Amino acid sequence: MPTEPQSLKLAVIPGDGIGPEVTAEGLKVLEQATPADVKFEPTRYDLGAERYLATGEVLPDSVLEEIRQHDAILLGAVGGKPNDPNLPPGILERGLLLRLRFELDHYVNLRPSRIFPGSISPLADPGEVDFVVVREGTEGPYTGNGGALRVGTPHEVATEVSVNTAFGVERVVRDAFARAQKRPRKKLTLVHKTNVLVHAGSVWWRIFEEVAREFPEVTTDYMHVDATMIHLTTNPSRFDVIVTDNLFGDIVTDLAAAVTGGIGLAASGNVNPDRTAPSMFEPVHGSAPDIAGQQVADPTAAILSVALMLDHLGLDDAARRIEDAVVADLAERDPATKRSTAEVGDAIAARVAG
Amino acid sequence: MPTEPQSLKLAVIPGDGIGPEVTAEGLKVLEQATPADVKFEPTRYDLGAERYLATGEVLPDSVLEEIRQHDAILLGAVGGKPNDPNLPPGILERGLLLRLRFELDHYVNLRPSRIFPGSISPLADPGEVDFVVVREGTEGPYTGNGGALRVGTPHEVATEVSVNTAFGVERVVRDAFARAQKRPRKKLTLVHKTNVLVHAGSVWWRIFEEVAREFPEVTTDYMHVDATMIHLTTNPSRFDVIVTDNLFGDIVTDLAAAVTGGIGLAASGNVNPDRTAPSMFEPVHGSAPDIAGQQVADPTAAILSVALMLDHLGLDDAARRIEDAVVADLAERDPATKRSTAEVGDAIAARVAG
Ligand SMILES: CC(C)[C@H](C(=O)O)[C@@H](O)C(=O)O
Ligand SMILES: CC(C)[C@H](C(=O)O)[C@@H](O)C(=O)O
Repeated sequence: MPTEPQSLKLAVIPGDGIGPEVTAEGLKVLEQATPADVKFEPTRYDLGAERYLATGEVLPDSVLEEIRQHDAILLGAVGGKPNDPNLPPGILERGLLLRLRFELDHYVNLRPSRIFPGSISPLADPGEVDFVVVREGTEGPYTGNGGALRVGTPHEVATEVSVNTAFGVERVVRDAFARAQKRPRKKLTLVHKTNVLVHAGSVWWRIFEEVAREFPEVTTDYMHVDATMIHLTTNPSRFDVIVTDNLFGDIVTDLAAAVTGGIGLAASGNVNPDRTAPSMFEPVHGSAPDIAGQQVADPTAAILSVALMLDHLGLDDAARRIEDAVVADLAERDPATKRSTAEVGDAIAARVAG
Repeated sequence: MPTEPQSLKLAVIPGDGIGPEVTAEGLKVLEQATPADVKFEPTRYDLGAERYLATGEVLPDSVLEEIRQHDAILLGAVGGKPNDPNLPPGILERGLLLRLRFELDHYVNLRPSRIFPGSISPLADPGEVDFVVVREGTEGPYTGNGGALRVGTPHEVATEVSVNTAFGVERVVRDAFARAQKRPRKKLTLVHKTNVLVHAGSVWWRIFEEVAREFPEVTTDYMHVDATMIHLTTNPSRFDVIVTDNLFGDIVTDLAAAVTGGIGLAASGNVNPDRTAPSMFEPVHGSAPDIAGQQVADPTAAILSVALMLDHLGLDDAARRIEDAVVADLAERDPATKRSTAEVGDAIAARVAG
């Protein structure tokens, strides 16, 4: 006699620009991948530019509290046109995306980078690439600390304060070591700019060294963020796990995505490893308002984000089926044939079902 | 009857690691390039790791005042081994290199990026690339503002404060517009992260728009620093002039150097456009302590920095002769034949003399 399937509550935030298009494909693939003994109950939250422009609301507290009651969150992309006069810069990013990351304590922002067979790298000779960036998600220059004086005058002074706590650094560094420990190469690189940002650098460096002693099997090194640009373009296969701060992680992961075959493939998890709140999964790419609604966006990153979510929820087999379907799809992609966003989703969903 | 040659006082700071080796080649080429009616009087300042470790001195005030009396400064590279227990992190970078940039008001950090015929890009298809980054040099996260509390304890809090003033932003933005105006494509891109760093972003954005009105012929656009990673690796030829803050400029120019054929070719000028103090010219690369003293470092970036210096001093013909010699040398470089640092310098010097 079949038992009741396990029910998982999924908050879906399609967001802005290409977000809704790519999210639809993620859900399509999720449906095919979901095991028989599991049932996802999606609830859609219309948050983003449209809602803000219509109502002035970004993320009402009541909505945040509803979202908190879910098992996981799928997000498309957030952010309006950079020059929309009705959208103060950062209002959606800070008020919606970053607020979710901070309120739900997503301190591990997980961003794997891999060159799949068939993925097209702009590098002439990328080699075998398979690394993961563990980006801190709740501190650093992203706290919103800072302010401005004499705004709009020739005497304006604007500050941004990067806040780094031993508590915040230690938990993400420890997570990165644990991940490195589980990988075949067991290598962890700290990326920072300790030679200039000496206060923040010193707490990162100290804690990195301290936690390293608990993981004697993990090989460690340190790299300045500027030098990381060079290594990621000339020898990306040297990396296994990278741990870094919120802003450096933002920059490094876009470069990582670019060199491993494009931002259309880069998935990410905003993970709360303590599971005190739902984790959130989203493509690394932004809302790309210039190509929104045209069915030209690549939904693969959104689909791989679903796989990361399934992993997080313990549904490893389902996650592997999606990854395998993506790998198979990629291997057969013909750059001369343009498929629509939905066609890519259909093709991957069919492979997962098949 | 020959007149007395014009005498120019040059402060030379070879610095650490590969700095002395590459600086020697820069001076060798300078000698050949100097026009008959000009005479450079170099004074060598031994500053850097060795002096600090021997004496505890980084940049004594009296030395700074002497350096200030020169017409220009040539610098090799600054920075000790990142894990030398006797070198507090950043002591040389902050105390020497950044102190010079700040005290001598080098607010325009000029970093050209060009793919020369013969330069080897890691990109499969870089296209024609010729852009310049105007990096702000005296503000942003480089001010050293910030501090730390409960250092070394589990309750440590460390902050880094990015300081951005309308005064500081306007002068560098204006310089960038003036440079864009003089170039054939007349295009200027502002790179920032206005969607997260809203306070700093807002003063950069406002002033960029304001100054743009004075330069109606210059086409402008805006790009987030993370998206810039993607464009620099997939379509670097789209850029003409980039203006950005101190930290983003540090990161973006290392990537620019990497994609245009390597950090061995990237030259830079720390320019005080008001000429209230000497400007300083140096390769973008660091001190690379791991390969120091082995005569394997490429001195081309140091040599091209000499050309930037000659340009700044109004000796355009001499600058062009060096650039042409570098271009000719590059076109004939055979990746299979390794030349020593001095051999590369000799070859370029011979072409300049020839
Ligand atoms: C949209 C933006 C706020 C966000 C970030 O900077 O974190 C994005 O670039 C990302 O990487 O997820
Ligand atoms: C050595 C370091 C302080 C310096 C910087 O960060 O500016 C270097 O990376 C550079 O780009 O000139």
